[in-house]
Amino acid sequence: MTTNEVVASYKHYVKKIMDFNESIALAEWDLRTGAPKKGVKQRAEVIGTLSEEVFKRSTSDEMKGYIDALTDPTVQEQLSLITKKMIEKSQKEYDHNVSIPAEEYKAYVILQSEAQSVWQEAKAKSDFSMLQPYLEKIVDYKRHFIEYWGIRHNKYDALLDLYEPGLTVKTIDHIFESLRNGLVPLVEAVVASGNQPKKDFLAQPFPVDRQKELCHHLLREIGYDFNAGRLDETEHPFELTLNPGDVRVTTNYQEHDFISTILGTIHEGGHALYEQHISRELVGTPLCEGTSMGIHESQSLFFENFIGRSRAFWSYHYDELRRDADRHFSSVSLNDFYRAINASHPSFIRTLADELTYPLHIMVRYDLEKALFNSDLQVKDLPGVWNEKMNEYLGITPKNDREGVLQDIHWPGGDFGYFPSYALGYVYAAQFKHAMIKDIPDFDDRLQSGKLHEITHWLSTHIHQYGSLKKPLELLQEATGECPNPNYLLRYLTEKYSEIYHF
Amino acid sequence: MTTNEVVASYKHYVKKIMDFNESIALAEWDLRTGAPKKGVKQRAEVIGTLSEEVFKRSTSDEMKGYIDALTDPTVQEQLSLITKKMIEKSQKEYDHNVSIPAEEYKAYVILQSEAQSVWQEAKAKSDFSMLQPYLEKIVDYKRHFIEYWGIRHNKYDALLDLYEPGLTVKTIDHIFESLRNGLVPLVEAVVASGNQPKKDFLAQPFPVDRQKELCHHLLREIGYDFNAGRLDETEHPFELTLNPGDVRVTTNYQEHDFISTILGTIHEGGHALYEQHISRELVGTPLCEGTSMGIHESQSLFFENFIGRSRAFWSYHYDELRRDADRHFSSVSLNDFYRAINASHPSFIRTLADELTYPLHIMVRYDLEKALFNSDLQVKDLPGVWNEKMNEYLGITPKNDREGVLQDIHWPGGDFGYFPSYALGYVYAAQFKHAMIKDIPDFDDRLQSGKLHEITHWLSTHIHQYGSLKKPLELLQEATGECPNPNYLLRYLTEKYSEIYHF
Repeated sequence: MTTNEVVASYKHYVKKIMDFNESIALAEWDLRTGAPKKGVKQRAEVIGTLSEEVFKRSTSDEMKGYIDALTDPTVQEQLSLITKKMIEKSQKEYDHNVSIPAEEYKAYVILQSEAQSVWQEAKAKSDFSMLQPYLEKIVDYKRHFIEYWGIRHNKYDALLDLYEPGLTVKTIDHIFESLRNGLVPLVEAVVASGNQPKKDFLAQPFPVDRQKELCHHLLREIGYDFNAGRLDETEHPFELTLNPGDVRVTTNYQEHDFISTILGTIHEGGHALYEQHISRELVGTPLCEGTSMGIHESQSLFFENFIGRSRAFWSYHYDELRRDADRHFSSVSLNDFYRAINASHPSFIRTLADELTYPLHIMVRYDLEKALFNSDLQVKDLPGVWNEKMNEYLGITPKNDREGVLQDIHWPGGDFGYFPSYALGYVYAAQFKHAMIKDIPDFDDRLQSGKLHEITHWLSTHIHQYGSLKKPLELLQEATGECPNPNYLLRYLTEKYSEIYHF
Repeated sequence: MTTNEVVASYKHYVKKIMDFNESIALAEWDLRTGAPKKGVKQRAEVIGTLSEEVFKRSTSDEMKGYIDALTDPTVQEQLSLITKKMIEKSQKEYDHNVSIPAEEYKAYVILQSEAQSVWQEAKAKSDFSMLQPYLEKIVDYKRHFIEYWGIRHNKYDALLDLYEPGLTVKTIDHIFESLRNGLVPLVEAVVASGNQPKKDFLAQPFPVDRQKELCHHLLREIGYDFNAGRLDETEHPFELTLNPGDVRVTTNYQEHDFISTILGTIHEGGHALYEQHISRELVGTPLCEGTSMGIHESQSLFFENFIGRSRAFWSYHYDELRRDADRHFSSVSLNDFYRAINASHPSFIRTLADELTYPLHIMVRYDLEKALFNSDLQVKDLPGVWNEKMNEYLGITPKNDREGVLQDIHWPGGDFGYFPSYALGYVYAAQFKHAMIKDIPDFDDRLQSGKLHEITHWLSTHIHQYGSLKKPLELLQEATGECPNPNYLLRYLTEKYSEIYHF
């Protein structure tokens, strides 16, 4: 076969895998949006069958043959950039999957699933000791896997690489330390401020059908294409991509907490814009997805915080909101509304945290994960260290493990290395905004006049279109001219919160 | 391997195929209920990939190995009934699929798809000559396929067998002739009657949200389990099965034609009950579906006509309907309502035909299909013969091909042999009802008091639970003690319509 023929055959082979992945994604979307409960068990088996097929094909001798043929240096010279990046990703996945003995991986998957059920009960009873033996085994498995992958020192880097390729403890330590040094005193100043915003009016009833209309409207306003997606209702909002022409979002309408609904919808909309704008050239390749968890989160947080929590955005949309809300806000000024949706105070639960305190929640988790894999922290000591760190960073101490170490599903699910991406995404988002302002100096004016097109277009041009063609740091460097730099986020938060809290 | 091991391995192999089929079904449901249009092309490729996989596995050497091993007479003796029936079905499918050369089948599939687009245009323009060359080729392909399957005479039987296994021209000729001899004069008497029901009030507006509630309610009343299904809205109503725990129906709400919505929903509900009640033992086998098109239609028509168009059913539900319809029916008596929803008159379009004239529409198509494959009718002569038959059976002649030979998608889609199942299903339904009355003599009283449980239970016990474990005639024989007998349908229609039309 000529190189061109091998490439064509490889792409055909990979396209089938992507098709299987799309049908898995559809099955999951359906399960989460309204599949009848009596069909769930059999549906899980369908997902199992398709996943097995994807795994088999990704680790087959045929795949190995393509990888060997197309990583040959003389062949590489003839390949297009897309093909090279495709084969690089296929190889990474292949190596990752074949290095763990199948039996061991299977045992791990079963453990993981058990641990998640146990976690639910442990959380309900606020009893870490129930989860502890499971978590110890999961950490042991992860340590083994890291050895299989061939990493002998700085094990945590191997986990970070799964979610944020190229980011290391060295870089993140530096970013998080700068960020924390600025944030901790800022949070203290907010807590100490005598000018706390009123926010009780946000709990006024807001008819669900009008929330629905408003969410559809706001998604359209930020550029979400309803011909390439749909909005449904679920208990927990999410974004799920079938292909760039079918990127779905969900939200949860809450009559007495409409602002969470709206900001949650905009957040998922930010994820969705990323996926809707990926170049159609990448469809059917493993590059047709956001390049990392962190870059993905940068897009959702950009829309949620820098747009959805901005004064400029609401100066355009506040009148609409007032109409939809049965005039409950007729006596609430735009400024009071803006201050209310940005009210900040240290709290225990990460998913309910405000934009100022949120990164500190992530740092607590990062420190613990790093110590588990790179130092000698024991699983049994997690609750104590968690509480100490919460007190150190946020000045509050959880009363129990439910509002402390047991709150997240990530660890029982085996997702160590995932958390840092949330805060990195936030740092990236601020950095993207800083770069964007150079091209769009009238950023605020555009928000104030409801013209978001240029903003979305900038993100699409510099970020979205590339899918996974560029690695996170490469993308960031090319879009902003810099490595990750936490100062932009810090400056944004400092300016915003000193103004809101008058200090 | 021992026989038990071969059986286990075969069942595992077949289960995977069924899992792929479930994900194809989900992709189709999603396409029809709201998938965004920009994702459709890529979704079609997903369905293509999965279908190719199903075809490959159903015709693989591995499948051939299982069939050979498990059809060996000494092995057969050791097999359970379910395993025997499974292997019988796998073999039939295997033989059916491998006998046609792959290239020829592919060309046929492409032709079929082209013919369906051409048909849409030809129908819009009412121009049969546009479709004619495509239809000629499709008929030629079908004739070839029949030869590949090894059938040399009575070719139409080979097509009937695809939809209604075991039914032949000989049997159907006999059934349809009796039915027609009774129906034609009955329709004439209805047309001539001086007591035509009024029905204009059925077009009064009926709020869509209340139609929705009513449809949900009536589905529950007939025994549809919403924990094993869901009701959505589509342009054309349909039922689609993912597995017996997930059997979905759709309907189309029409503000000025609520009765079509309600009866259409009950019709699809009848299909769905069949699938929801299939024994859980059959899940993951090719037997986990209705045994034939005709038996399936018998269940939908049973609910639509013998329940949904009955006086007894509405004597229980009419007050509800009146409330939901904003009292539009306060001056319409139950009897007038009953007569209105059963008004009958010869018409051109099959899908809009009433229950009395409907079987005659089918006979027109049956006569033409039979003559195409067993005699020497030419495709070019279809429009003329169609019109003659319409006049002969229904006393009306289409003014053009759009309301004549071009009205259905079945022929451009290659579905010759399918139509008879609609009328056979109706014959079966009446025959089932006759048998049921022996066990449930107070059938009407039960409808009048809204107690359908025993009725649904009877159908479940005698029909639904078996899936495809019994062939249609075997099922009918065991449930009713008879071969197909059109007299029950004829008697039902004669009694009902002579009463409504006073003759």
